This record gives sequence, C-alpha cells and structure tokens, in this order.
Amino acid sequence: MGTTQLQAAPEPKYWHLKTVLSEALDSEFAVGEILPNERDLAARFGVARATLRQALEQLELEGRLQRRRGVGTTVAPPRVGVAVAATGQDRPGAGSDAWQAVDCAPGAAPAPVAALLDSAPGAQVHVVRRTRVSHGQPVAAELLYVPGSSVPGLGDAEAPCGASRARAVLRELRRLGLDGEDRSVELGSARAEDAKELDRLPGAPVLVVTTRYLSRGATVAVSVATYRADTCRLTFGDTGGVEFDRSLHAQAS
Amino acid sequence: MGTTQLQAAPEPKYWHLKTVLSEALDSEFAVGEILPNERDLAARFGVARATLRQALEQLELEGRLQRRRGVGTTVAPPRVGVAVAATGQDRPGAGSDAWQAVDCAPGAAPAPVAALLDSAPGAQVHVVRRTRVSHGQPVAAELLYVPGSSVPGLGDAEAPCGASRARAVLRELRRLGLDGEDRSVELGSARAEDAKELDRLPGAPVLVVTTRYLSRGATVAVSVATYRADTCRLTFGDTGGVEFDRSLHAQAS
Repeated sequence: MGTTQLQAAPEPKYWHLKTVLSEALDSEFAVGEILPNERDLAARFGVARATLRQALEQLELEGRLQRRRGVGTTVAPPRVGVAVAATGQDRPGAGSDAWQAVDCAPGAAPAPVAALLDSAPGAQVHVVRRTRVSHGQPVAAELLYVPGSSVPGLGDAEAPCGASRARAVLRELRRLGLDGEDRSVELGSARAEDAKELDRLPGAPVLVVTTRYLSRGATVAVSVATYRADTCRLTFGDTGGVEFDRSLHAQAS
Repeated sequence: MGTTQLQAAPEPKYWHLKTVLSEALDSEFAVGEILPNERDLAARFGVARATLRQALEQLELEGRLQRRRGVGTTVAPPRVGVAVAATGQDRPGAGSDAWQAVDCAPGAAPAPVAALLDSAPGAQVHVVRRTRVSHGQPVAAELLYVPGSSVPGLGDAEAPCGASRARAVLRELRRLGLDGEDRSVELGSARAEDAKELDRLPGAPVLVVTTRYLSRGATVAVSVATYRADTCRLTFGDTGGVEFDRSLHAQAS
C-alpha cells in the first residue's frame, strides 16, 4: 500500500498513479466532495498533467469519479444496481414497467434494427421513446422500434404522435403477448439526444442494451437502450440481482 | 450527410467530427486498414488535434477503431457476440465450459467478494484464474473465488497450485451442484494482469461481469470476469443471443 515496488512487467505511470489516487480517495475524501484542480493534484503527486488526466480517466471509467460541467471533478457515490430483468416482468407494456413513455413518432428503422425485425431497410416503424429513472436520477434512454404489423389494433383515429400514442403502442404490445427475448450488452458512446436526457456530454461512455422481443417465435419489437455507464451497474438474474456496497472491480484491483 | 446544419442544441465539435469520420470509415476504408496519422487527419478535416483525438476516442468506444501499440489506429472488425449464458451450461465445472483453467492459488477474497460470500473480509479462499478465447482471440480473464467450505472434498494431497489444482476445484464445484446465479455488468478499466492476458494496455475499458453462483440458496463461489469492451458484445438469452452484422448502436446513431 502506497510503496513503489519493482515488478516483472513495467506498469505505465498513470496506472501506478491511479492506484495511489484511489487510496487517497478512500482515506481523504467523502462522496460528493470536489477534488483539487488538476494543477494542484499534478504538483502534489509529482506527475505531468497528461499523466494525471489519464489516471483521472481510469477512475472515471471505474465509477470512482464524476466530471460535471461547471462543478468539476467529484467523488462519485457507489453505482446503483439497475435490474435488466429476464423474468418478463419488465417487457414493454407490462404493468410493473420501470420505464416512462416520452413520445412516439413514425420513423425508419436503422438498417441493423430492420435486419433484426426481418423487414426491409428503411421500413417505417413506430419509434417509441422511453426513459428510465432510478433513485431520482435518469439512468437510461430507450428507442423501441415496433413495426405496424406487430400492433394491428392500433387505431388511426388516435393522435399520431406524443406520449398517449406511445402508451397506445405499448398497450397493443401487451395485447399481442410478448413471450421471450434476446439481449446484448456492449460499450458505446452517448448520442447527442440520449446525452441530453441522461444529463451527460455527447460521447460519454454508455452501456448499450439491445433487446429483441419475441412473440410465438417471431421478432415483434427491438429496443436499443442506452444506460449511463458512470452511475449504473446492470443486474441480471432471478434472485433479485447482485447488490454490492460499491464497485467490486474497483476494490478488487 | 456530410453537411453542417445549425441545431437547437449546439453539439461539441468532436461530436460532429465523429459523425463525419464515421461516414468516411464506411465509404473509404476497409476493416484492418491503418488510418493516416493524426496530423494528416486533423489537416484534412480542418480541426485541432485535440478535437481529432476526442473524435477518435468516441469511435474507439463504439468499437469502430482499434488503437494498437506499434501498429497505429486501424478500422476494427465488427464486434464478436460472446454468450454470457443464463442457461446453466456455462457454470464453472460444467462440461461445455468455454473457459480454460490457467492456475489456482490460495488468496484473500477482496472485501466486496467476501461480503457476497458472506465470509469475513480477508478470509482465505481458492482463487482460480481462467481465460476465455473466442474466434482465436482472448476475450475475457476471470478470477473465480471459491471458499474451502464449498469444496470440502478437495484433497490436500493434490498440488496446492497450478492448472491441475484449478481443475480439481472446478470438479468439486460440479460435484457440489450449482443451481442458480446472479449477475451484474458494469464498465471498468483493465487491471494490469488482466490487460496482459487480453493483449490490452492497463486501464483499457472493459466490461466487468460479476457472477454469484448458488447451490441450494447459498452463495458458494463468486466470479469476477473482465471482458474486452472493444471487441466483445455480451449476449444473454435463451434463443442463442442477438447476432448483428455490426454494432447496432454505431449504425443507429
């Protein structure tokens, strides 16, 4: 702890600094506290500012620090576990929905979404926008692509856009009966619109969860949800999800 | 496409550049091709090198570019879907194991792992190291923490370390019978040891998958697995996982 030892594999300078900084965060700073500015920190640890910045980026990736416009760099609270349920209770239209419908508009499915839906590229679909809030914080923004053929009962008389239209599409999905899903999780960067909803800068690291919803073996809707990677830990499983005091990985490293 | 339009919310310069660069990648470059150096690229797009670097970082986050030591920046192949199965077939010790046991040594469980195992901080456990290879590439490095109480049949006569010891621990876990698991996925940065196994620089973005394995309601092992975020898309689900041509999010943005 805190001493420098020669190792078989040379570690980059920023990596060693990250470890030292991490220990300083544990012992000297409280959650929410603002860190000294980069110049002072670089001087204190005797490193170049470029090295310092790399170490701060690492700690941001690990969820230990948050950088916010107009505030500076603060010590982050522990990440919040957000359930990405495989139990079916969170399927679009289900009663216990953690998502809030924002609006709905007709739009073209991007090529990869169209491929998952087995429809022609550029085919018109209903695009439902939803957001997810956890512990009072926006944690995810979603685009849900629903082909017209999945919701044949959707009346033309209803408003063509807006939140009520979104709720109508979700109601029809519930009527259709979703009975399965596939999911993938990958790293991405926040698109400008998502960044605004998530209170982040465009390009901030996000976890992109793509879900293909099935009904009787056919894909009837595709969701592309963008979760804040700084504040969220996605949980999976039947027994309520793994809950930790803080990021396991940060402590284990 | 390619034209600059005034928008209600001003986008950062690097964000616009990212979009332009992304289109150039699609139209002018093949997978594996080396990009021109930063100076030339900055000149071509008429931006400062700092702006260019930010845009390149975004594209790296999205899996479009790879930066490799001694090679430069190349156009990345599409991400590979890696199944993080919930079907139980991939539980440690199961026959269809995608993981290779590397070694095993006694060690202290980090505090959060000890908490999940419901044991005292610093308690000695078996630490099994495993790696996962997909399509000839290392995709994940794992530390599997197994308390002695979970594997009472483990003979003291066997070698205390090494791959054969690791296989003995996995065999005893299979004998115990794992019957459930909880999982979480979060963003992290590669620890030095993991980075070496994954052929990355320490601190590279990774997806950290923490799994708590259960047997008759009790937690009997905890796995902390580090997946390359640049090349992997984690897939979940019963029907084989979502497979795309390329990153959905990159195309959808």
